[in-house]
Amino acid sequence: MQFAQFNPQIVEELQTMTATAGGLAHYLDFRHSEFTAGRLVVEMEARADLLTPFGNLHGGCLAAMVDHCLGVVFYPVIPAGSWVATTEFKLNLLAPVSRGMCVAVTEIIALGKRSGVARIDITNDGRAVCAAQGTVTVVNPATGSS
Amino acid sequence: MQFAQFNPQIVEELQTMTATAGGLAHYLDFRHSEFTAGRLVVEMEARADLLTPFGNLHGGCLAAMVDHCLGVVFYPVIPAGSWVATTEFKLNLLAPVSRGMCVAVTEIIALGKRSGVARIDITNDGRAVCAAQGTVTVVNPATGSS
Amino acid sequence: MQFAQFNPQIVEELQTMTATAGGLAHYLDFRHSEFTAGRLVVEMEARADLLTPFGNLHGGCLAAMVDHCLGVVFYPVIPAGSWVATTEFKLNLLAPVSRGMCVAVTEIIALGKRSGVARIDITNDGRAVCAAQGTVTVVNPATGSS
Amino acid sequence: MQFAQFNPQIVEELQTMTATAGGLAHYLDFRHSEFTAGRLVVEMEARADLLTPFGNLHGGCLAAMVDHCLGVVFYPVIPAGSWVATTEFKLNLLAPVSRGMCVAVTEIIALGKRSGVARIDITNDGRAVCAAQGTVTVVNPATGSS
Repeated sequence: MQFAQFNPQIVEELQTMTATAGGLAHYLDFRHSEFTAGRLVVEMEARADLLTPFGNLHGGCLAAMVDHCLGVVFYPVIPAGSWVATTEFKLNLLAPVSRGMCVAVTEIIALGKRSGVARIDITNDGRAVCAAQGTVTVVNPATGSS
Repeated sequence: MQFAQFNPQIVEELQTMTATAGGLAHYLDFRHSEFTAGRLVVEMEARADLLTPFGNLHGGCLAAMVDHCLGVVFYPVIPAGSWVATTEFKLNLLAPVSRGMCVAVTEIIALGKRSGVARIDITNDGRAVCAAQGTVTVVNPATGSS
Repeated sequence: MQFAQFNPQIVEELQTMTATAGGLAHYLDFRHSEFTAGRLVVEMEARADLLTPFGNLHGGCLAAMVDHCLGVVFYPVIPAGSWVATTEFKLNLLAPVSRGMCVAVTEIIALGKRSGVARIDITNDGRAVCAAQGTVTVVNPATGSS
Repeated sequence: MQFAQFNPQIVEELQTMTATAGGLAHYLDFRHSEFTAGRLVVEMEARADLLTPFGNLHGGCLAAMVDHCLGVVFYPVIPAGSWVATTEFKLNLLAPVSRGMCVAVTEIIALGKRSGVARIDITNDGRAVCAAQGTVTVVNPATGSS
């Protein structure tokens, strides 16, 4: 895909915000390891304290990771002043996770004036553990288009 | 829907486990306020420390809530010794949340030997904020049926 | 749900259009049996010629029915001059269909300026056979909002 | 992905069946242009008689195409005697289609004993028009596992 713009400053701001903002992103300790136009890689460690009593990572951690990636990946490539809201997403949990790093690769597959679609693939030690697809609404208050 | 069995002891065990197990369910402080055959009500407070820098509840909190509900609601109505794994779910975020209690009502809409489907509706102060639909795989090691 | 407007003339136009327009809607013979504000009931017969060699209705017939309902249900309740485009939907196929009438009940569960969400439940002789949830984009060329 | 088996005879049977079975697959004229282990390419022409009164291909045609691909792609790589049932799928409609060939590329992204997951990408004259992800249940009557 080609994008009309790419703002590397926003990439930095999003990384700083994720690292410092507290809340769920801090609790799950999401780290942006790569962030280029239309592509974001986020890491999350399957810490022992995130496992359920059955010894597996709570699926909600992966779901939250999907939500985070979807909400972040569009910002650098939308017009200045626009923002995105997550409309919806769907995920498949493909295999249980019990340790190690979860790596989520997000790629934008469609972007229009009003909405965008991305896919998120999460692996754990090289195994596919989650596959997701989601939609965001792009809103531009300045132009009135959304 | 009618169910072939309903085990109230499992209801209690799941409530205790959710309250004591730590991890994500503890961090988000899920509380089972109702749990009957095929229907589960869970509450989560939109605490200030769960809000993003934009003042809204991180969508990942609602996504984790959906995952939790889907993973729990089937246990009391499946055969003893069986367990469930979340196969997939889809959610729509309908409105932002900035304070108050989130109440997730989960209802089973289909249950077979191998899988089940449930819908989850989350409201916040009476407004619909999330609508979800998901699938679990039912596994019964004892009978060899899946 | 409450709606700001409801245009019964559009209900009639959509019924006529579905009955006369040809194409897939004609091939599958969708019939609007009820259509009120936020709620649409559509019928489709599981004709013998729609069954696969295994004797079951092709899932694509139910998927097309979901798409049709989602694309139609919003028109009477959106501002005059607006139109909708199907953004996405998700469906679960709950049981096979081999004969009789399929009845799809669609209900709008959220409607904003830019988008709407609906759920579709299809039954066949009283059994639930498909459950779906989908999103449309609402576009209003006149106001520039969308 | 690697697969434990690949049965080219089933590939041929599915192509013949799709071409001769009548019903929806015949009406929409699906053609299997490539079919290898874990990957299927299907073509469908956006014929004039499949367009809605607004001049666009009925979304139901793409939804039916997704359902067809999902239901077919797993057969050559599952154990002999097994069959698959479509559990669920989700699709995004990315752009309208008004003419030309629709090409659906389906790839299996996960396959276990009980279920499989695939993604389907449909392009029209090189543009992405639909992106889908779905789940099937794999049933093996012979072994009792499913």
